[in-house]
Amino acid sequence: MSSISAQQVKELRERTGSGMMECKRALEEAEGNLDEAITILRKKGQAAADKKSGRATTEGLVGSYIHPGGRIGVLIEVNCETDFVANTDDFKQLVKNLAMHVAAASPEAARWVHREEVPDEALSKEREILKSQAQSTGKPDSVIEKIVEGRLSKFYSGTVLLEQPFIKNTEQTVGDYVKSAISTLKENIQIRRFARFERGSD
Amino acid sequence: MSSISAQQVKELRERTGSGMMECKRALEEAEGNLDEAITILRKKGQAAADKKSGRATTEGLVGSYIHPGGRIGVLIEVNCETDFVANTDDFKQLVKNLAMHVAAASPEAARWVHREEVPDEALSKEREILKSQAQSTGKPDSVIEKIVEGRLSKFYSGTVLLEQPFIKNTEQTVGDYVKSAISTLKENIQIRRFARFERGSD
Repeated sequence: MSSISAQQVKELRERTGSGMMECKRALEEAEGNLDEAITILRKKGQAAADKKSGRATTEGLVGSYIHPGGRIGVLIEVNCETDFVANTDDFKQLVKNLAMHVAAASPEAARWVHREEVPDEALSKEREILKSQAQSTGKPDSVIEKIVEGRLSKFYSGTVLLEQPFIKNTEQTVGDYVKSAISTLKENIQIRRFARFERGSD
Repeated sequence: MSSISAQQVKELRERTGSGMMECKRALEEAEGNLDEAITILRKKGQAAADKKSGRATTEGLVGSYIHPGGRIGVLIEVNCETDFVANTDDFKQLVKNLAMHVAAASPEAARWVHREEVPDEALSKEREILKSQAQSTGKPDSVIEKIVEGRLSKFYSGTVLLEQPFIKNTEQTVGDYVKSAISTLKENIQIRRFARFERGSD
């Protein structure tokens, strides 16, 4: 086992916000490699987040964001487990950032929170369009099927809030951003619903 | 024709905000009776408002109201004819008051803006419930029909935003309040849509 210096632990703590013992263990596991230790901590955080996401969320906040000029407005409900977390600045910031994300998304985008909410009708309509587009290439049916599935995942990442690239950091999805908040705030967090009004559009 | 003093005109102007000549004419028509003159001006304002409500509304504001504590939030779109009116403090106040009204209304209330938006399904379901309630009184069919129609108008005033008693002045409906704004701002104004989220409810 490599020996880990207090300086390394300190640096890792500063970069990840994780506890001292967690950082020490991650550095030992990574044999002193800082980047590797960060990855280890992130994976653990993600795993902890996945575990938390089954828990009941009955608290939370309804928040809004009105774009300057009042042309676009968003209302959003984000739930968590306790009133305590709902009242933290971190949670309020999360709600605000999510509302801003929905406001910034183009009108066609951000229609549903979860993939499961996409109505069968919308899905089969999209599938039909993609199929006829793919068929016009003249490729064999087995290839067309793959093209359709590939483009369908683009449809999801365009229209499903949790699957969109997060506007403030396009390296992660909105779902990843929520998961990172679950890791930080140590509670299950769910986007319950949102509404987006743009003046003069439907 | 009775002679109208400058003092009377001044008082009427202060109480109604109408123009000097309008006030003078109303006082002449009311033969100097101030209350009567106010009624005359209000009727004219209402008539002017009715006339304006056919005009196209493509401008306006999206506004929101979040109840302290973040348990209830409202998003609303109110349209008017010009950007100029949309940017006035009066219009902003109107939007804010309407959003507050929707937030204060109980969850079952304020489901639609106009009576025309109530889906046939909801209406026939309500009619059916009211009918069976009325039939349990054992009254003749002709009476039952009248009871149902009477209670149906209560259903409308409970669920249709424009027909609800306005929260800040229950003497008038929300629709009356919007009409008074049309009179003041001299543009057609329409509530386009709203969303109301209450944490933990549907």
